[in-house]
Amino acid sequence: MSRYLDMVDSPEHVKKLTLEQLTPLAEDIRHELITVLSKNGGHLGPNLGVVELTLALHRVFRTPEDKILWDVSHQCYVHKLLTGRKKLFHTIRTTGGLNGFACRAESEHDCYGAGHAGTALSAALGICAARDLRGTREHVVCVFGDAALTNGISFEALNNIAHTTRRFIGVLNDNEFSIAKNVGAISRYLNQLITHPRYSRLQKDFQRLLRRMPKGEIAIRLGHKAEEALKGAVSQAALEPGAPLGTDGRGGYGSSLIFEEMGLSYLGPIDGHDLPLLIESLTFARECEKPVVLHVITQKGKGFEAARRQPEKYHGVGPYDISTGDILPAKPGTPPNYQDVFGRALVTMCQRDSTLVGITAAMPSGTGMKFLEQALPQRYYDVGIAEEHAVLFAAGMATLGFRPFVAIYSTFLQRGYDCILHDVALQDLPVVFCMDRAGLSATDGPTHHGLFDIAFLRCVPNVVIMAPKDEDELVDMMFTATRQNHPVCIRYPRGAGEGVPIKNQPRLLEIGKAEVLRHFAANGRPKVAIFPLGNLQRLGAEAADRLAAAGCDVAIVNPRFAKPLDEGAHLFFGRAADVVVTLEDHALMGGYGSAVLECYSQHRVAVPVVRIGWPDQFIEHATTAEVLRDRHGLTADAIVHQVRQILAPPAALAAPTPSAAAAPPG
Amino acid sequence: MSRYLDMVDSPEHVKKLTLEQLTPLAEDIRHELITVLSKNGGHLGPNLGVVELTLALHRVFRTPEDKILWDVSHQCYVHKLLTGRKKLFHTIRTTGGLNGFACRAESEHDCYGAGHAGTALSAALGICAARDLRGTREHVVCVFGDAALTNGISFEALNNIAHTTRRFIGVLNDNEFSIAKNVGAISRYLNQLITHPRYSRLQKDFQRLLRRMPKGEIAIRLGHKAEEALKGAVSQAALEPGAPLGTDGRGGYGSSLIFEEMGLSYLGPIDGHDLPLLIESLTFARECEKPVVLHVITQKGKGFEAARRQPEKYHGVGPYDISTGDILPAKPGTPPNYQDVFGRALVTMCQRDSTLVGITAAMPSGTGMKFLEQALPQRYYDVGIAEEHAVLFAAGMATLGFRPFVAIYSTFLQRGYDCILHDVALQDLPVVFCMDRAGLSATDGPTHHGLFDIAFLRCVPNVVIMAPKDEDELVDMMFTATRQNHPVCIRYPRGAGEGVPIKNQPRLLEIGKAEVLRHFAANGRPKVAIFPLGNLQRLGAEAADRLAAAGCDVAIVNPRFAKPLDEGAHLFFGRAADVVVTLEDHALMGGYGSAVLECYSQHRVAVPVVRIGWPDQFIEHATTAEVLRDRHGLTADAIVHQVRQILAPPAALAAPTPSAAAAPPG
Repeated sequence: MSRYLDMVDSPEHVKKLTLEQLTPLAEDIRHELITVLSKNGGHLGPNLGVVELTLALHRVFRTPEDKILWDVSHQCYVHKLLTGRKKLFHTIRTTGGLNGFACRAESEHDCYGAGHAGTALSAALGICAARDLRGTREHVVCVFGDAALTNGISFEALNNIAHTTRRFIGVLNDNEFSIAKNVGAISRYLNQLITHPRYSRLQKDFQRLLRRMPKGEIAIRLGHKAEEALKGAVSQAALEPGAPLGTDGRGGYGSSLIFEEMGLSYLGPIDGHDLPLLIESLTFARECEKPVVLHVITQKGKGFEAARRQPEKYHGVGPYDISTGDILPAKPGTPPNYQDVFGRALVTMCQRDSTLVGITAAMPSGTGMKFLEQALPQRYYDVGIAEEHAVLFAAGMATLGFRPFVAIYSTFLQRGYDCILHDVALQDLPVVFCMDRAGLSATDGPTHHGLFDIAFLRCVPNVVIMAPKDEDELVDMMFTATRQNHPVCIRYPRGAGEGVPIKNQPRLLEIGKAEVLRHFAANGRPKVAIFPLGNLQRLGAEAADRLAAAGCDVAIVNPRFAKPLDEGAHLFFGRAADVVVTLEDHALMGGYGSAVLECYSQHRVAVPVVRIGWPDQFIEHATTAEVLRDRHGLTADAIVHQVRQILAPPAALAAPTPSAAAAPPG
Repeated sequence: MSRYLDMVDSPEHVKKLTLEQLTPLAEDIRHELITVLSKNGGHLGPNLGVVELTLALHRVFRTPEDKILWDVSHQCYVHKLLTGRKKLFHTIRTTGGLNGFACRAESEHDCYGAGHAGTALSAALGICAARDLRGTREHVVCVFGDAALTNGISFEALNNIAHTTRRFIGVLNDNEFSIAKNVGAISRYLNQLITHPRYSRLQKDFQRLLRRMPKGEIAIRLGHKAEEALKGAVSQAALEPGAPLGTDGRGGYGSSLIFEEMGLSYLGPIDGHDLPLLIESLTFARECEKPVVLHVITQKGKGFEAARRQPEKYHGVGPYDISTGDILPAKPGTPPNYQDVFGRALVTMCQRDSTLVGITAAMPSGTGMKFLEQALPQRYYDVGIAEEHAVLFAAGMATLGFRPFVAIYSTFLQRGYDCILHDVALQDLPVVFCMDRAGLSATDGPTHHGLFDIAFLRCVPNVVIMAPKDEDELVDMMFTATRQNHPVCIRYPRGAGEGVPIKNQPRLLEIGKAEVLRHFAANGRPKVAIFPLGNLQRLGAEAADRLAAAGCDVAIVNPRFAKPLDEGAHLFFGRAADVVVTLEDHALMGGYGSAVLECYSQHRVAVPVVRIGWPDQFIEHATTAEVLRDRHGLTADAIVHQVRQILAPPAALAAPTPSAAAAPPG
């Protein structure tokens, strides 16, 4: 079957098709998205929703001269298909393949990369300011979702647009969903805009205005008169006194618009799947000599029934069955995910302790907080994509004797850094930060890896930083956190646990106390002490076996705490060992291993330390974490190699001593 | 002269005075503020502006049961005077005295501390949620400035209030100024509210409503009918169709209010110096069973002519002459401040290089960015108290070939951490972060010390971190930054430079190259290599002299770069020395010294390292940085002591070897 998509590989091709040909092209694109993502997984729902919008954008604007910014940018797959990356699209989110987000290094059509929400309006305004300063005329278009408006940075940007530039095109892609169902006043407000009779009027007037223009020549004809036309169309509908905006208790106001108050002209709302209307509206917006926001209503998951029915599940999804829409089950025997263990344990703890509450920043499913939402909705708070507010809200609750569990991915918690430091830690409030996705988020890549939390948190006074060796210890650490009167951070990885049983009653851990898993045998061989933090226990055990086989006397200690460090255990094994090995799923610079060096330096222990962790570079994406660990030296091989180098002369290991040779191999 | 202030030491006293007695009390308070701050310095303007508001709050609410949160909280001096801290008020901002901000540890009346803007609405909402959950009825009042609305967190909070609680009292303290003149759409918007005829109507209606109630009994009489009364008053004025909001090009909308759109009831604007009206309005707000915002117009610096005329200068001020209002000049011979050197150098560089621009987050004076504002206003951007937007705006400009200098205090840059990491560093954009106030901000204290930037930035790939030894090297580093295609961070302290001359032509420094200031004499004595980072050169030199006098052979190396570290220099001196000493005006955990340990561990250099820096605790405020350095061991004494301990046996130093004894003493 010949497809229109086969004819299209660049924005120029999109412009050459007739309007009529764009509709089947949209279908081809949806088919491609559904097919490829059924194997690779990815952000299916958001991309199905912006097929027509993306086509219209590339019809009206000329990248790379014109700039299109995508907020979060997980919705840029269609854009990738249309900008020279069609042949590589089947590689998306896989090792060596296309990144799942916009990426400057990948294409000149990706003018700005992102993986965190709320950045695009600010960056786009910066680009506008730069353009104005150099005196060029390219267009800057920022596509942002309704969910981005729950994030404060979007408002900081809106506050600055009108006095900074006269030419700014915002496209509000409103699908009434962030990742979960959107929350808050802004969400209700937008919904009101869409449904209120006055705005239906406004919309009709705007469409009538557009329809009056001859198709295809709209841009030329409008020229600089667009602004006047805009004023007429908008004012006409809006200035008439009308009924108050319904009975939502908001005091009866309502003929204004938050964007207008911010000094931007508002256009819409329009149907985001009506291609001709999108093209006309964007053409109109393109010619405006004042900042505009075009409000576009789209349907998340459009064209794939399963994704429409379950927008949250299909926001970001693993492989699924195309025919049934069922998400492929995990391999039999796969242990439960850390976030499910977290979510269920939190419910149990909340049921037992009335001071506990749960807070999420728009990630009830991703973090496992959904279990609390279902079980104890009154103790559950979803604040939107507002990590800073989440942390401060928790701080406020903690001042009244509550102990909030704030579950935010490690990478997103970077947003709340100042609030953790200036509000929670400085006031020494008992907030528990549950840092999911600490370590790699392999298929997402560098925007989502959580490799810096120990470094940025370790320097903060008063905080406790823990990392469990398995999902059972995660529950112990959560329980232990409920008994602390200080900020506690628990870092744990994405995905499946180790498959250990969860105790019925969690154990209270001693703060700052490591767990000795294997002592030295004191058999006279070279001594190696391995400290694998958190989820690197299996790597530690593998390295230990290899080193033992090579003639070493190996001890293994689960450090549990990156702060406070168990100085006793580290010093004891440091003094006894010939080599100490630290393992962490974290950047080497400033991480747990660095804390161990500080401890040894302080106490003048001169043992050589092999620190295993992520190198000082942004780590790319890949199909699995293992690929990246192999590539960057988080392997037993690397550990053995580095230990051997220290236990020179190499001959000592290559030709084991009699006692070592007597040890059982492997 | 007997004063009303002498009769008042607690909120109960405020409640016992007659309304007529409050006016002279307000005068007494102003006199006290003006007198004490003329010696201690402090936030004079903001506190003079909230005298009546604070009196009214303590008249209407009962702390500590009721909670009053102050955004930023530099305007809480009056609150301190009225809550048991009057006798200590003369100690404010001095060693061992009162902190200049709200502080939970200082008083039960300070329910939430802060020193950064925009946190109070979120924290107050957290307190409301906790109160609602435990089912108590205390009131929660959040006083926030118009400038806080330029910060995104405030909007994240506003977005969450209406669906979280029915009882929330916001007081918008609108003085049309943040620290500098406020910027952005929100600022214009608020100004419009105040001046528009329709809102004068609204205000009058609200006041008429209040006046109809019998004074003193308003609360009891209103009871739960407040909400209905509110609806009536507000709707009456607002629902009538009126003229569009002037000719500001905002499309003619205007009968709505941003707070109403967020689901909050808006009251005001009212005169923030009319005590009876304030008391009545707050009493009304207290009884509302829905979230309200009371808009209060105050005058920054009211009651002190110099502060009224120059609100920016008197926002936070050093000692001044009460009679003339003149700020006391620096001691003769005091070198220029780092920020002045920075500001002037930036102007020169911008004049020579058209790709350079300057960005500040509401701190044109504090950072020295004002010089650029004056010289090249079109290359200068003040984005409001919006550090995240500032960083992203810079990132956007950088994608188009510009090289923005973003000047933000070290402590406030914590807000932009994720944006630095996820946007600037990940895309490797050439943004220059000028981190003023790196190190201590002694009189401000722990909310303002900049002691963590190396730790949180060092782990970020692609960034360069420099710290100049003096103001001339600052200019060299700025110049060097303009030749880098990577993110560059320059940290430098508050206040006066070293007094060195500034070269006419700055020098291009080699990235990652330290500067050897003094080599070993190779005289056979114990070798000590001192690496003083940034502003600790003088301490390094003093320690070097002391150690030399005690018989050591001392080398001094200015590291210049915390990242990339000059491995060559550190290894060379590390291998040659008996002891290495690192000095940094930064937390010890994860700082520059920690980077040196990583380097030595990596290269198996076993030299003992004495790391001097700030301990793992929040550092208190004091009159001077010296007091705190003495207290926390950043002294030559401490250095000598630690070095001696390592160069054991102590006798070796106590009784110098013949060659050492031959050296000239001192």
